Amino acid sequence: MQFLMKKTEFPMSGYNYYVPGSPINGYGVAKVLDSGHPNFSAGDLIWGATGWEEYSLIQNPEKLFKIHHTDVPLSYYTGILGMPGITAYAGIFEVGSVKKGECVFISAASGAVGQLAGQYAKLLGCYVVGSAGSQEKVDLLKNKLGFDAAFNYKEVPDLDAALKRYFPEGIDFYFEQVGGKLFDAVLLNMKVHGRIAICGMISQYNIPEPEALKNLMHIAFKRLNIKGFTHRDHHHLYPKMLETVVPYIREKKVMYVEDIVEGLENGPQALVGLFSGRNFGKQIVALAHH
Amino acid sequence: MQFLMKKTEFPMSGYNYYVPGSPINGYGVAKVLDSGHPNFSAGDLIWGATGWEEYSLIQNPEKLFKIHHTDVPLSYYTGILGMPGITAYAGIFEVGSVKKGECVFISAASGAVGQLAGQYAKLLGCYVVGSAGSQEKVDLLKNKLGFDAAFNYKEVPDLDAALKRYFPEGIDFYFEQVGGKLFDAVLLNMKVHGRIAICGMISQYNIPEPEALKNLMHIAFKRLNIKGFTHRDHHHLYPKMLETVVPYIREKKVMYVEDIVEGLENGPQALVGLFSGRNFGKQIVALAHH
Repeated sequence: MQFLMKKTEFPMSGYNYYVPGSPINGYGVAKVLDSGHPNFSAGDLIWGATGWEEYSLIQNPEKLFKIHHTDVPLSYYTGILGMPGITAYAGIFEVGSVKKGECVFISAASGAVGQLAGQYAKLLGCYVVGSAGSQEKVDLLKNKLGFDAAFNYKEVPDLDAALKRYFPEGIDFYFEQVGGKLFDAVLLNMKVHGRIAICGMISQYNIPEPEALKNLMHIAFKRLNIKGFTHRDHHHLYPKMLETVVPYIREKKVMYVEDIVEGLENGPQALVGLFSGRNFGKQIVALAHH
Repeated sequence: MQFLMKKTEFPMSGYNYYVPGSPINGYGVAKVLDSGHPNFSAGDLIWGATGWEEYSLIQNPEKLFKIHHTDVPLSYYTGILGMPGITAYAGIFEVGSVKKGECVFISAASGAVGQLAGQYAKLLGCYVVGSAGSQEKVDLLKNKLGFDAAFNYKEVPDLDAALKRYFPEGIDFYFEQVGGKLFDAVLLNMKVHGRIAICGMISQYNIPEPEALKNLMHIAFKRLNIKGFTHRDHHHLYPKMLETVVPYIREKKVMYVEDIVEGLENGPQALVGLFSGRNFGKQIVALAHH
């Protein structure tokens, strides 16, 4: 068997509604077994949109990325050096144009994207606070990932009061991934002309009725600039990102926390766990090892 | 009595919560009776933040605008040549960067700001649809103000279906002033990379519980750019706006619909009427006539 390794992550929820029996896509790392495309040869390692399956037939390989740096864990290409990595990098450096000294709030801060966004903002010289959904995750943010502060947004009795405590002068930039009540409280605590980058609202994906937000008017009152974005529009940043982030990894200036489950049979449970926050760091399903 | 004329509009709802008995501010047109400030002399006409009162003592006159063009109705300086005028002008030309050929949707389209925003977008060569809250207002938009189409958002059984009919390829730019269900339906009908400028959400100001929005996630999915703004950050555009818009008025390229009630005693009712949409065009309270 020539197939050596394949890791697959969860599909893009919200974009696609999964219908049982239909093929399901995700971002994975794989080794090319055979190729009719001039850019790829047997033995190449790639990352990109593959399937939740052990072997994939990929008909549009133009969108795959070839892996060149193999002195880092290959699983990183589903995370810090893959799609979530582009999302975090683009969110902080391009969409948010975050600058030294700014006050930055990151939600879902221990997740695949948030842990990177927070570390990048710290490397820029910002004051960075993160929220997460368990004490264990909060400890990770404060003790391992270098956040200035962190709190468990599920346990805080008054989100507005908590944000006012962490940001007495308001938030310059909010990296939004959660939605609902947390987003609503953030709107009350943005500085005038603050910026928000939204790449997801995971709390709102799988609930029958979305939460009513009370504070959308503050978008006007505070003259906020809110940008929705996905990694898709920022793939041109990838070479620059590799140049910056691969040395960060080698020099241990950033770390990346992964939550790996073994075997495709454990994939569905790992996927569902994301919506209740059961994962600890980037959720990965390992199908085979290198 | 040297005081000749004063017109006052409603206060900035949402910004200030009015406490009965306290002074209440609004935007008005007035004649200077006496001045200790070198920039203003008795007899000057001004517009700016004054009070809901017949005579005002203004302690920070630096923020007042002097009126130079008096061949247009002076009431226009509470509207097309005043604060709502700057809002509409900035929203279309600066915040929205609206371009020829784009598909533009304006809510509260017959109001103080919306009627101008729509006409400016038409002058730029856009396809422009407006929504308003009565048949009379819809007729005004279609028959007098040159909108390509208009509909009564209170009577449409399915806002999403209506927007899909008017914008089969989606909306490039939405000028948001209403909020609630209308905003939610618009989010479903924006083009990818569409822009939204928000200067108000009047449907949400005076209700006990804001409406639950289901579609905020589309900010990320569609990579929307949403900017809150007020006229306050765009006063530098005023000279350029006058240069553009005063000739438009003289050449009847734009028209401006005003709803004038007489006497301060009718002010409260006129103010309250805004929240149910009773006004027809820009609401003005006339205290005296020139």
